[in-house]
Amino acid sequence: MRAVDIIIKKRDKGELTREEIRFFVSGLASGRIPDYQAAAWAMAVLLNGMTPREVTDLTLAMAQSGEVLDMSDVVKIAVDKHSTGGVGDKTSLVVLPAVAACGLPVGKMSGRGLGFSGGTLDKMESIPGYRVDLSNEEFEKQLKQIGLVLCGQSKDLAPADGKLYSLRDVTGTVQSIPLIASSVMSKKIAGGAHAVVLDVKVGNGAFMTNLKDARELSALMTKIGELAGRKVVTLLSDMNQPLGCAVGNTLEVIEAIETLHGGGPHDFREHCLHVAAHMLVLGETVPDVQAGRALAEQSIADGSAFAKFRQLVQAQGGDVSYVDSPDKFPRAALIEEVKAPQSGYIEQVQARRVGEASVALGAGRSKKGDAIDHAAGFVIHRKVGEKIKEGEPLFTVHANDKKKMSEAIEAVMQAHTFDDFPVPSLPLFYE
Amino acid sequence: MRAVDIIIKKRDKGELTREEIRFFVSGLASGRIPDYQAAAWAMAVLLNGMTPREVTDLTLAMAQSGEVLDMSDVVKIAVDKHSTGGVGDKTSLVVLPAVAACGLPVGKMSGRGLGFSGGTLDKMESIPGYRVDLSNEEFEKQLKQIGLVLCGQSKDLAPADGKLYSLRDVTGTVQSIPLIASSVMSKKIAGGAHAVVLDVKVGNGAFMTNLKDARELSALMTKIGELAGRKVVTLLSDMNQPLGCAVGNTLEVIEAIETLHGGGPHDFREHCLHVAAHMLVLGETVPDVQAGRALAEQSIADGSAFAKFRQLVQAQGGDVSYVDSPDKFPRAALIEEVKAPQSGYIEQVQARRVGEASVALGAGRSKKGDAIDHAAGFVIHRKVGEKIKEGEPLFTVHANDKKKMSEAIEAVMQAHTFDDFPVPSLPLFYE
Repeated sequence: MRAVDIIIKKRDKGELTREEIRFFVSGLASGRIPDYQAAAWAMAVLLNGMTPREVTDLTLAMAQSGEVLDMSDVVKIAVDKHSTGGVGDKTSLVVLPAVAACGLPVGKMSGRGLGFSGGTLDKMESIPGYRVDLSNEEFEKQLKQIGLVLCGQSKDLAPADGKLYSLRDVTGTVQSIPLIASSVMSKKIAGGAHAVVLDVKVGNGAFMTNLKDARELSALMTKIGELAGRKVVTLLSDMNQPLGCAVGNTLEVIEAIETLHGGGPHDFREHCLHVAAHMLVLGETVPDVQAGRALAEQSIADGSAFAKFRQLVQAQGGDVSYVDSPDKFPRAALIEEVKAPQSGYIEQVQARRVGEASVALGAGRSKKGDAIDHAAGFVIHRKVGEKIKEGEPLFTVHANDKKKMSEAIEAVMQAHTFDDFPVPSLPLFYE
Repeated sequence: MRAVDIIIKKRDKGELTREEIRFFVSGLASGRIPDYQAAAWAMAVLLNGMTPREVTDLTLAMAQSGEVLDMSDVVKIAVDKHSTGGVGDKTSLVVLPAVAACGLPVGKMSGRGLGFSGGTLDKMESIPGYRVDLSNEEFEKQLKQIGLVLCGQSKDLAPADGKLYSLRDVTGTVQSIPLIASSVMSKKIAGGAHAVVLDVKVGNGAFMTNLKDARELSALMTKIGELAGRKVVTLLSDMNQPLGCAVGNTLEVIEAIETLHGGGPHDFREHCLHVAAHMLVLGETVPDVQAGRALAEQSIADGSAFAKFRQLVQAQGGDVSYVDSPDKFPRAALIEEVKAPQSGYIEQVQARRVGEASVALGAGRSKKGDAIDHAAGFVIHRKVGEKIKEGEPLFTVHANDKKKMSEAIEAVMQAHTFDDFPVPSLPLFYE
């Protein structure tokens, strides 16, 4: 078997066999197949597509390119969640403690932010001392002891996906539904998941900007789950405006803590309860979504979800005094409240622009390895459809650089549009 | 400008600007753009195509990625020729001396064989002492002194093409008409050609296997010539059976010498006269093709073409005693004449199979840098359409390894098919 023949077969719209896919993926992981062959192949896959069978074989081959975790001793049904990424998406910080507090242990490996979209690890690292690099032994031990882990992905998991992912980023091959689906699913399977709630974001602040693509990705991931013997529930949620109000690492942690205390923005709270409910159903903790939602709500109401979050932070070396008193978090040097320039109904709060503006402020990365300003970001005060009067607070910017701040204000102002006539609010979920 | 954005634009079927193409090509030449980005881009070009304007810009950018020769001091109109490659194609060995003998100086840079197709440099190196690596100064001096040069391509010419070409070979992106056309034309333009005769081979022993693709390539190269201000004449010639009889380096040199003496196979001689006639017209040595053909024929008849070939060999350090007495050439240890297994008309002599069998015998390379057995090869005795009787000589194999010889006999026997009823002969040219 030769790599070039596999590239040519896909170039000519052929369907690759399981053996060909395994050969390619293992060659990629071992370095026997060089980057330039993988790049040409990825472009051919992007342009010519893959059948669900090919994508499933790709997913499994990538999952098996390294260690595959097995947490069966610790948790009967390992339920994971994954969001395709968005702006202000701090869902894991609330959902995981809630679900764990309801009695379903969850061990999740998250990623960092890249581009306009934030990353759970960066958010958690706003808490001084919080360690994201756990060994597999530490992961298992903590999952057994407190039923909750939230850390970075082990380098031993799905190394072929890691290689392909960084290559796609620089070769214009990110936007391939088969490659996105297999990347997500391979990491979940390598992480030992038996069931996964997939939150597919759709809108201008998501990688899928239209419902057609989002549905296609969602259907493909469901199909991979089916073919690979994993239960998959996909949710399609809106990402045209930021989720919740806070965008930026420390600001989002604070908003998550407020939500765990029963407060927080309405949309974010609803979103979390919905995701948590599905996880509890997949984990067979509750019979249906309604019961799941009620249980998750209760875990927030009785303080057990917050207690679990506190326990998580402590277990991973974080300083819980910040969690207990969010006022302690270091704040940006410059905090400015920006007023609405006109009266009317909020027509748009373009999530992508807000995300990009937060990266420009230092809250995210333009490229891998960039340092992050944890305190920087925004609090967006109004949601699409809300009525506002000229001079009322529209958003607040948190910055450590004057020039960057004024550019960010300009950008987030432009992300907002207004209408004289009522505008419907955006749905949280599409189906 | 970022390489990834240029890849994405082509991925999305956009038309690249001249500036984008120049940025990409200069980055490729300098190494600033890594191989994996070039590979993804080449696959996107292969699958999404390029407009003639884009291909012309690509051609000129690659030509200008290194030194561009200017032989205006030596020759008024620098005429070059190029064959897209085939089996038994030793045309340059006869055409160039004939054209030079007619008073039109020719300096040509040729390539080596790769895959089933032979290379002029390998053939010329069958002559002991013949040097193919001339400096640009040597090239110019020899062109001035004897009006004929036949050497390898300087590394300083079109280095971006060199890089892209070797990358395409291993990434399944060889078969792209825009990339083939720009590769050929960039080398010709960098070599200082004002006019080019392009011999586009079509058939099972060529890279273009059907007339549609051959016509498309031919039209595109003509268009590039037009847009780049170079005169281009394209010929479409048959490559379903080997050209002439000899396939293999020394054997082809001997056949070329016979042809320069007025002998040689009829098809090969006709082919050479046709190509030479077009070169003489482009070089304004003669007013039309008919006159060019007559002049070239005369140069063979009066011995001046052979004398020019002898002068070439001498000028580049070759031992002319071999040219004077081809019997001196070292022959293969095993020479076996193979008889026709049946009577009938020759229906096919599949050029590709003969070419592949000669590579297997050691006459060609499976991969770059492989050593070559100059003496190995075949003499094919019959052409498609000819009548043959069982037991008459069909072909002769020249080999240095018994096992390889018997495999080669088997393969070339299978390349031949017979028909009980008359079969038309193959045309030399299609249009």
